[in-house]
Order: sequence, then structure tokens, then C-alpha cells
Amino acid sequence: MEKRIITISRECGSGGHTIGKLVAERLGIAFYDKEIIEMVAAKTKLSPDFISSHGEYFQNGSLGHIIGYGGRFASPIQTASSLQDQMYFVQSELIREIAEKEPCVIVGRCADYVLRERNDLLNVFIHSEMPFKVERSVHEHGLKEGEAEKILTKRDKARAQHYTFYTRQTWGSAMNYHLCLDSGALGVDRCVRLICEAAGRM
Amino acid sequence: MEKRIITISRECGSGGHTIGKLVAERLGIAFYDKEIIEMVAAKTKLSPDFISSHGEYFQNGSLGHIIGYGGRFASPIQTASSLQDQMYFVQSELIREIAEKEPCVIVGRCADYVLRERNDLLNVFIHSEMPFKVERSVHEHGLKEGEAEKILTKRDKARAQHYTFYTRQTWGSAMNYHLCLDSGALGVDRCVRLICEAAGRM
Repeated sequence: MEKRIITISRECGSGGHTIGKLVAERLGIAFYDKEIIEMVAAKTKLSPDFISSHGEYFQNGSLGHIIGYGGRFASPIQTASSLQDQMYFVQSELIREIAEKEPCVIVGRCADYVLRERNDLLNVFIHSEMPFKVERSVHEHGLKEGEAEKILTKRDKARAQHYTFYTRQTWGSAMNYHLCLDSGALGVDRCVRLICEAAGRM
Repeated sequence: MEKRIITISRECGSGGHTIGKLVAERLGIAFYDKEIIEMVAAKTKLSPDFISSHGEYFQNGSLGHIIGYGGRFASPIQTASSLQDQMYFVQSELIREIAEKEPCVIVGRCADYVLRERNDLLNVFIHSEMPFKVERSVHEHGLKEGEAEKILTKRDKARAQHYTFYTRQTWGSAMNYHLCLDSGALGVDRCVRLICEAAGRM
């Protein structure tokens, strides 16, 4: 069965954004990554900066942090009053509306978990070894070479905590995804082909 | 670059053996799964039954178990005198010889880790949800429907412990593999195509 919705979870610097965009272009379907930030801003009146920094990254100072980070056993209900949690619920509702509206690629934001009831979903995780991520981050995103590894590691840690907190699943465990790819070993173009083939849309 | 050696790690019942065999047939290369048991038996004089039950499964009663299972931080050196450990080292040496000799598919036995120094390697992990694994195990391997889930879970737990003990890596973590596939969601034939494409041999 052809998959209408492709979610892409990814390590920072692994090229997940680029790969997702190329998949969407090749399949002629919509693409959502940072576009979601503006859409959440319009619904919540929160600043795009706040949404960008809290929409995928677990942050110190959220109520969830204050009452103690409970890892995979924490319940979102415990912390429903924090701004981060409110934003998560608005963002999730938006992701469900997008998936209902049109075939698309959605990057990040726990979309694999948010849409888990659908049966037209292909969940992809993209990762790679550090040298590939550092090189991409320096050349494509302007990080300083001496700082890139530390920044990428910190961001991925916050992403993993955010994912685990809201989904009670382990970020990067193969069992959560239909397809996991090492973009450094396989290359960006081959990852695009593999995702299209896995989605039944080659 | 074309990958000469394809290693396949897999959950019990996920169809990893079948998928690996089909990949080897399609690419016209050698296939090693249970074949390795006889080869280790010839080298060690251990019984094929012992090798079969200890070659991929962590077992109660090994020296490693007696001195305490140290998880990812345990060092193989601590337990080098147990039969299971001696067998692991013979098996690993054999896997290195096979990889040196000819292009092939190797199923299980920590081959991804044993061959980690090679740069002509494609490491694949195959998993799926329980209903798919139960159905395959009942119809293809004759497990009783009421017992299959319990048996599969127990076997995978022993495989995961074995893998973690010898590699100090987490079994099923996407970051250990170049390609992870949900065989239930994707189907056996599509998994075969994806592996051949990922190996650069489509």
C-alpha cells in the first residue's frame, strides 16, 4: 500500500531536512519543517523563537523540568500547564490537520508518534556518524569547526529528551520506525531513493 | 561504493533469514547463517547443539553470568575462560575469514561488530511488530500460536543480552546499523529490494 504521509526524525546535521525536501519534490507532495513554526505561532501568539527552541528541544525551566524529568514513564498529563506542553498539544493538533489535508513529508516534532493511529504512514529516522554531521554543519549551516560537535551533541540530547518525554519511546530505537538510514554511509541521493521506494512511490 | 559484505541482525520471527537468503540469491553471492554452526563445530569439537544455543543467545550458567552480567560496560576479557566466550572468539575469527574470502550475506552472530574495521560493509537490522512475527513463526517454523509470543520475546532478550555483552552496543539502536527495516510494514520483497539498493548493487 502506498504511504501518503512520510515522517522524518533525524539527528542534527545528518541531512534529514535536505533529504525530506528532496523526497517531497520527487514525489510532488507538500513539505513541512520550519513551516510548522509559523503555523503554531499564528495559533498560539507565542513567538516563533520560543516555538523554534521549545518545539523539538527539551528545555531547562519548563514545568516538566521543575517537577523532575521522568523519562519514558513521565505522563504528559503531569505537566499540562507548562507553556512547552501547551505548545506541544497545539503543534500535534496541527500535524494531525496537515496529515488529514494532503500527502506530505513532515520533519521532526514527534510526528511519527502524533500520527501513530494512521495506517498510511512511513516513519523514517536518519542518523550518521559525527564527522559527516560536523562537515555538513560547518559547510551548510555555518557552525564553527571547533564548536560543531559540542553543539550537535547538545541539540540531539535535547531532542532525545523531548521525544522521550512526550512519546515514552526511545529516540533512535529502530523499533519505533519503519526505515532507519545512515546518511553518511549511504549518501543523500541514495537515502532519497530508499525512502521513495519504501513509501511504495518509486 | 559497492558493499561486498552485508550483515543482517534480526528479531526472531521478523523474516531476517529469508530476506538475507533472497538478497544473496539476487546478488549471486554467498549466504551464511546456520552454515556457521557446522564450521565452528569443525574447529572447536563443540556440539552443534551447544553452538546453536550459545552462538547468539546469552545463557544462564556461563561464566559471564556467574560473575554478574555487566551490560554494556562488561569486558569480554573478564570472562575469557568460559566456553561461550571461547566459542565467540572462534566464531568471530571464522566470520573475518569468510568476509576476506568472498562477497556474502552473514546473518546474526554480531557480524556487524566483528567486521567493524572493514569499509565494504552494509549493516542491516530487521524487526517488526509482534503479530507479524507470531504469524511467521507459527506458519513457517511451526511454533504453537499460544506460545509463540513468549518464545520469541525470550529469544530476543537472550540475543540482545548476547549482543550487548560482546559489543558493548545496544541491540536494535538505529545508530549501530546503516539500514533498519520493519519487515512487517514494508513486506519481505520490498526489504530485499531496499537492501540491494542500499548495498549499491541494484
